[in-house]
Amino acid sequence: MTNPTAAILVIGDEILSGRTKDKNIGWLAEELTKLGISLCEARVIGDEKDVIMAHVTHLSDAYDYVFTSGGIGPTHDDITTQSVAAAFELPVIRHPDAEARLLRHYEGTDIEFNEARQKMADVPDTASLIDNPVSAAPGFKIKNVHVMAGVPSILQGMFATFSHTLTGGVQPTRITIQCAIGEGSIAEIMSNIAASFDGVSVGSYPWFKPGQFGTAVVLTGLDKDKVDKAASQLEALVREGGHDAHRDLDNSTFT
Amino acid sequence: MTNPTAAILVIGDEILSGRTKDKNIGWLAEELTKLGISLCEARVIGDEKDVIMAHVTHLSDAYDYVFTSGGIGPTHDDITTQSVAAAFELPVIRHPDAEARLLRHYEGTDIEFNEARQKMADVPDTASLIDNPVSAAPGFKIKNVHVMAGVPSILQGMFATFSHTLTGGVQPTRITIQCAIGEGSIAEIMSNIAASFDGVSVGSYPWFKPGQFGTAVVLTGLDKDKVDKAASQLEALVREGGHDAHRDLDNSTFT
Repeated sequence: MTNPTAAILVIGDEILSGRTKDKNIGWLAEELTKLGISLCEARVIGDEKDVIMAHVTHLSDAYDYVFTSGGIGPTHDDITTQSVAAAFELPVIRHPDAEARLLRHYEGTDIEFNEARQKMADVPDTASLIDNPVSAAPGFKIKNVHVMAGVPSILQGMFATFSHTLTGGVQPTRITIQCAIGEGSIAEIMSNIAASFDGVSVGSYPWFKPGQFGTAVVLTGLDKDKVDKAASQLEALVREGGHDAHRDLDNSTFT
Repeated sequence: MTNPTAAILVIGDEILSGRTKDKNIGWLAEELTKLGISLCEARVIGDEKDVIMAHVTHLSDAYDYVFTSGGIGPTHDDITTQSVAAAFELPVIRHPDAEARLLRHYEGTDIEFNEARQKMADVPDTASLIDNPVSAAPGFKIKNVHVMAGVPSILQGMFATFSHTLTGGVQPTRITIQCAIGEGSIAEIMSNIAASFDGVSVGSYPWFKPGQFGTAVVLTGLDKDKVDKAASQLEALVREGGHDAHRDLDNSTFT
């Protein structure tokens, strides 16, 4: 069993300067995991045409899906559309349907549908539109690359309009065992479980609060029964060692 | 004027699954910007040896500094140390000073300094230690790569111990002009300012609240006087168009 693969490409100088904190990687990561799509990597890059081209080309070749955020607004620093088009050696065209949507959106307002705003109707030739239920200006899909806005609410709205069209895989089963002991003390147990159950990944996440500490052991895999068996065995071994261990129900499911 | 360059490499399956939300990219981005180090890209990858090796090698060659987070704990899924060592074709050694620090840390507690915990004293041969003021187990520096823990409080503590040793550059001047108008209406003004002031980047960040909207125009550059002049000119042009524009003092400085 293998799941489709994906990469996220966050485009924006404001993330690299630290002025804006990215929220799209974490949100998309959860959504893709729910769909059974394996997020293999995420990258943050600046608003530079050559850089965007190189990363889009590489990620599009390497993964089944690419999701980008940022750089599709009306201003001079919004260069994602032209850069993605150039990466695929396609001309940029003004999409009639996108233009019509924007016209309708601005009709009856005192906002002028000027040249800058018309630019938001531009997409690479042959791209299909991604609906924008928040602010009209569409994203687009070209080959396996989904180009979305950077504002989290708009990106989330856009993703919701097409996520059902993505070919998902098996949603991984994830079971968290909360252990009342430091990770270093149960490292050998975890290592043995990981070695005994092929296809089950065993993640160790220590936590600390005043006067308390413990380890969240997260077992993940595509074979539900196997993950369940591995989790039960780990839980039993930690208890045998004299320490509390129990399934963390809050953390054990995705939805 | 050019500043030293940097990349961030976040290592951890838990970020890619969405279970844990990364906080290190945004924090490090701000710190590097303050030091006058240009963050050029950030990547998030999983706990896989070949993958870590490939990204470390590439980023170490491409940038002046690399900062990694995650994967240096005591458990089987902590494979950053061995992967970074392999990337530089170096053996992993047990560092006597690191071992001594850990011994002192666990002395007098009921926590056993077992084999798993001893692993946290391992570093690539010739690496220097990065102090850990939070939980003793050190990070390390090898060539231009700084390897830190993934837990944000520990990473921040580690970074504070060596940031003064980094060769910084000119801290960019950043001036934010808050404009009471949508970005699409002042796109041409921004584009003209960007074209007229070489070395000044003009970022456009629209914002919305119930009943209100506007655009934060962020002007950034290494030449303070030039950025200041560009900001004043932009402010005046937006006002000439009949819309309020003023410097946002909260957002105009880094510190």
